[in-house]
Amino acid sequence: MKLDTMLVLGYLGIIAVLFIGLTHGSPQEIWSPEALAVAVGGAVVATVAGLSLQELKESLQALRVAFTIISYDYERLIGDFVSYAGISRKDGLLGLEKVISQIDDPFLSRAVQMAIDGVEPDLVEERLAVELASMDERHARTRATYDTMATYSPAFGMIGTIMGLVFVLKSLNDPTQIGPRMGVALLSTFYGVAACYAVFTPISKKLDRKHRHEVLYRQMIVKGIIWLQTGDSPRSIEAKLRSFLREERG
Amino acid sequence: MKLDTMLVLGYLGIIAVLFIGLTHGSPQEIWSPEALAVAVGGAVVATVAGLSLQELKESLQALRVAFTIISYDYERLIGDFVSYAGISRKDGLLGLEKVISQIDDPFLSRAVQMAIDGVEPDLVEERLAVELASMDERHARTRATYDTMATYSPAFGMIGTIMGLVFVLKSLNDPTQIGPRMGVALLSTFYGVAACYAVFTPISKKLDRKHRHEVLYRQMIVKGIIWLQTGDSPRSIEAKLRSFLREERG
Amino acid sequence: MKLDTMLVLGYLGIIAVLFIGLTHGSPQEIWSPEALAVAVGGAVVATVAGLSLQELKESLQALRVAFTIISYDYERLIGDFVSYAGISRKDGLLGLEKVISQIDDPFLSRAVQMAIDGVEPDLVEERLAVELASMDERHARTRATYDTMATYSPAFGMIGTIMGLVFVLKSLNDPTQIGPRMGVALLSTFYGVAACYAVFTPISKKLDRKHRHEVLYRQMIVKGIIWLQTGDSPRSIEAKLRSFLREERG
Amino acid sequence: MKLDTMLVLGYLGIIAVLFIGLTHGSPQEIWSPEALAVAVGGAVVATVAGLSLQELKESLQALRVAFTIISYDYERLIGDFVSYAGISRKDGLLGLEKVISQIDDPFLSRAVQMAIDGVEPDLVEERLAVELASMDERHARTRATYDTMATYSPAFGMIGTIMGLVFVLKSLNDPTQIGPRMGVALLSTFYGVAACYAVFTPISKKLDRKHRHEVLYRQMIVKGIIWLQTGDSPRSIEAKLRSFLREERG
Amino acid sequence: MKLDTMLVLGYLGIIAVLFIGLTHGSPQEIWSPEALAVAVGGAVVATVAGLSLQELKESLQALRVAFTIISYDYERLIGDFVSYAGISRKDGLLGLEKVISQIDDPFLSRAVQMAIDGVEPDLVEERLAVELASMDERHARTRATYDTMATYSPAFGMIGTIMGLVFVLKSLNDPTQIGPRMGVALLSTFYGVAACYAVFTPISKKLDRKHRHEVLYRQMIVKGIIWLQTGDSPRSIEAKLRSFLREERG
Repeated sequence: MKLDTMLVLGYLGIIAVLFIGLTHGSPQEIWSPEALAVAVGGAVVATVAGLSLQELKESLQALRVAFTIISYDYERLIGDFVSYAGISRKDGLLGLEKVISQIDDPFLSRAVQMAIDGVEPDLVEERLAVELASMDERHARTRATYDTMATYSPAFGMIGTIMGLVFVLKSLNDPTQIGPRMGVALLSTFYGVAACYAVFTPISKKLDRKHRHEVLYRQMIVKGIIWLQTGDSPRSIEAKLRSFLREERG
Repeated sequence: MKLDTMLVLGYLGIIAVLFIGLTHGSPQEIWSPEALAVAVGGAVVATVAGLSLQELKESLQALRVAFTIISYDYERLIGDFVSYAGISRKDGLLGLEKVISQIDDPFLSRAVQMAIDGVEPDLVEERLAVELASMDERHARTRATYDTMATYSPAFGMIGTIMGLVFVLKSLNDPTQIGPRMGVALLSTFYGVAACYAVFTPISKKLDRKHRHEVLYRQMIVKGIIWLQTGDSPRSIEAKLRSFLREERG
Repeated sequence: MKLDTMLVLGYLGIIAVLFIGLTHGSPQEIWSPEALAVAVGGAVVATVAGLSLQELKESLQALRVAFTIISYDYERLIGDFVSYAGISRKDGLLGLEKVISQIDDPFLSRAVQMAIDGVEPDLVEERLAVELASMDERHARTRATYDTMATYSPAFGMIGTIMGLVFVLKSLNDPTQIGPRMGVALLSTFYGVAACYAVFTPISKKLDRKHRHEVLYRQMIVKGIIWLQTGDSPRSIEAKLRSFLREERG
Repeated sequence: MKLDTMLVLGYLGIIAVLFIGLTHGSPQEIWSPEALAVAVGGAVVATVAGLSLQELKESLQALRVAFTIISYDYERLIGDFVSYAGISRKDGLLGLEKVISQIDDPFLSRAVQMAIDGVEPDLVEERLAVELASMDERHARTRATYDTMATYSPAFGMIGTIMGLVFVLKSLNDPTQIGPRMGVALLSTFYGVAACYAVFTPISKKLDRKHRHEVLYRQMIVKGIIWLQTGDSPRSIEAKLRSFLREERG
Repeated sequence: MKLDTMLVLGYLGIIAVLFIGLTHGSPQEIWSPEALAVAVGGAVVATVAGLSLQELKESLQALRVAFTIISYDYERLIGDFVSYAGISRKDGLLGLEKVISQIDDPFLSRAVQMAIDGVEPDLVEERLAVELASMDERHARTRATYDTMATYSPAFGMIGTIMGLVFVLKSLNDPTQIGPRMGVALLSTFYGVAACYAVFTPISKKLDRKHRHEVLYRQMIVKGIIWLQTGDSPRSIEAKLRSFLREERG
């Protein structure tokens, strides 16, 4: 549970940058709880309206994923498969019984268990593919939640601003109040655009990047387990798994 | 026929949020039946113009789907398949005759009937796939109706606002009237944007989410029936159907 | 050649809705032939510039398709195939010679002719697939024409409005003329947006919906003819063709 | 090398339409070489920055393609294949040596040569498919160049307009100059939007349409040569090639 | 390590074009470090927030790729394969041991090594395909970084401008200051739009073009090595590799 420093620093950096923009004004002048409620509150509420309770929970859990670092140790995974291949060469696939208790990753653990149980490679691949597809679907779903918030924020900001402008235009009796009130009306667009590009979109992008790492990791497991079952040598498995990574390091 | 509380609460929440935006004005000031007619009426009429009567009916039925909860009991489905597999192990596929009358879901019922009739697995899969594809097409069609309304609303709102602005600009003789009348002109953009993001888009998103649940449920049925026909053991069918769900719970 | 009442009523409805928007002005005030020429004329001319003469003709023919109802009688098609299957069971595929003269639809007629001629099922499917792909391409092309007009209209409207604004801004000598002339300048954006959302887009959507019906109808023919050739029973053909429709009725 | 009259007339039509928009002003008023340089010059330069010299040359050549008519005589192609099939029936594929010198189209010529050389049908298809894919890539690339210019033009127009507005706003000392100078600032947006929709997009659309015709022509050649090699009768080849065209004529 | 002259000249050209836009003002008037910080700084920081440290490094390395020319000598590659085919015809694939030390490109070198090691063609293709897919993923990732900056720049520009407008509107006491301060507020939109279209997008497009060249080069290697293993003659390999290029030269 390590913090994702890049994301946290990024948010701090955005705040810093916006403070630079305050050189000709003060934070109080752009503070308006009503505008915030309409723009961001509206976007969040409208997004949640489209979810089920279950999906709302998932989306909140995704926040934790976005803000923490889950590192996928590809090198260790290759090492593990090399040692599994050695064991299975010596004692057969059944020999993997000894190591299964040490496997943390439940996906890898299920894959190895199927190999031990003698499930046929085709079937193993099919079952793991179903799991991967369903992970894909779930990740796409939570990402879509933040993308929807990003789309809704400027829209609700605009709704708030138009409402404000209508009020200003309908009561032009005190000319000295026109300017300040138009400024207030603009604030909800400000909050909406800022929430979209400075809050929700970075979360969605972060989730996407992390999703890709997880997919790669799991694809390596799927292939590795198949190669293990078809009796590839440790050296061959290592070489083949390494092809997945060669380009990863640039 | 349970209400979809999330969607209903969501709509109430949006209304609450918009009321917060009314702190500098009153609801009467943003009420304009003409603006509403142009923005939302125009969007609905233009969308309906592109439909057939049949599709219009489908779209109205979809509203009921959006606002009610249809829960897919995946666990019960797995349990059912386990029991079917037990029966068919003991008495052959023909033994399923006993249970078919208890099946509510017509899709599942047709699938089991084909298994009893001895239709070949390949053919069963093909026929069910045709049904799934055609359900997909129908759902996409109704969702597209609400997406079209969402796209048209701000556009018709803009049309109304430009009309209003032209009238204001062409008769600038009474300066005190300019502001209020521009405010009125802006209202139809307000209604258009609000209808898009606070009404139609959440419906479309809701339909999409529900569609995905139904597809998953039906895909499990298709696979389950095939595995039943090929004589898989109850335990194996359970394990394989469960792969579909593992990621569903996060 | 029956009128597509939904589309025609839709257009009348849009006009009615726009008249509601005229409560604060008169139709004369938003009438400007120059603005119409720039916005809609420009969009049409720029679209036509990208077509060949042949494609221009196709696009005009598509208008007729959009405004008339072509009903695909799926039920009758299933009935026909059931009777063909009966005939071919009794007298062989050659027996279909008797019925071919009664077939109106040229696509179905060509398909049945190939079955009579003893063309192999694979080849029949390939040839019909080529025809379907080429129909798809042609429909996509004509739809694209109306989508292009829809995209160009607001753009040319904006071009007209900017031109008008430049003229207004460059000759601010008579202040009383500024307002009315800005109003006139705005009209071409009004026409452009209205043409896009109230004229061209509904046509494109209508063409898309009709295309989908035709594709379904033809796909049923392709499958039906193959099943006929492979000697399926009338009952089996009926059951299988019906899978295409089950979801069609919601 | 015949001019593409539709495109040329289209451009003349667009100019005519814009002149109608000049009823309330004069051409001199919307003429500004600086605005043109920023909007269109900027768009062209920024697009070229992303190309290699080779790609720049290709894009210029594509202009010639857009403005001239290359007609694909599908009927003649079918006739040619019928006669080739007749020759190869009588004298074998080697008999085609006589006709190869009369073939203009280098793609067709290479295809026939491979048939004469006895290259296996699978290999012929693979090689021609590689060529088609690479043509596709090249056409997509040149079309992308004009799409990029279309995207950049309004953006650079906006850049020019904002610059102009900033200058106006920073020196409001002579109020009579504000209007005219804002007008000038707007001109670069005018040029940018006009260049996008009235110049670059039609070129891109034209290239796309011509690309589709060429692809169809070449696909017919690929299929024709295969059928020739597998010994189809002239009548069968004609019938099958004609399926490609049936829908072409609407 | 040759400079990519087109890109560098392109950037100089854009600067020149913007200077033309300065005819009615001076560079000082559009210089504002705060606006630059909000628009471009904000976009860069928000983009980086979504990256991992590793991906940030990759994106910086991609800058070097964008600004230098990496020429793929397709002709030389074909020549190399012709000579490899000659060697392998005479001395078998093992004869390639002599040349492997002279191969610079690590991808080609690994491919040839596998051929020497007697890895089966199917497996060679699979492994190289994994590497290509992973290169694709990495390139898409870095390109996405610049696309994200391009999307964020105008958005942060708009954020800065709205903040500025709010400050102006809230303190209208000194009317002579309104214009100049609105001008300053507009500058951050100016920087944002300019950064998007004149800086980040050209980099992304450049990376895309270079990616396509690399993919083509590597695809030729994959195919070449397979043909080498299956014992094709030098002449045949040359002919087949040349099909990849025919359309490249237009």
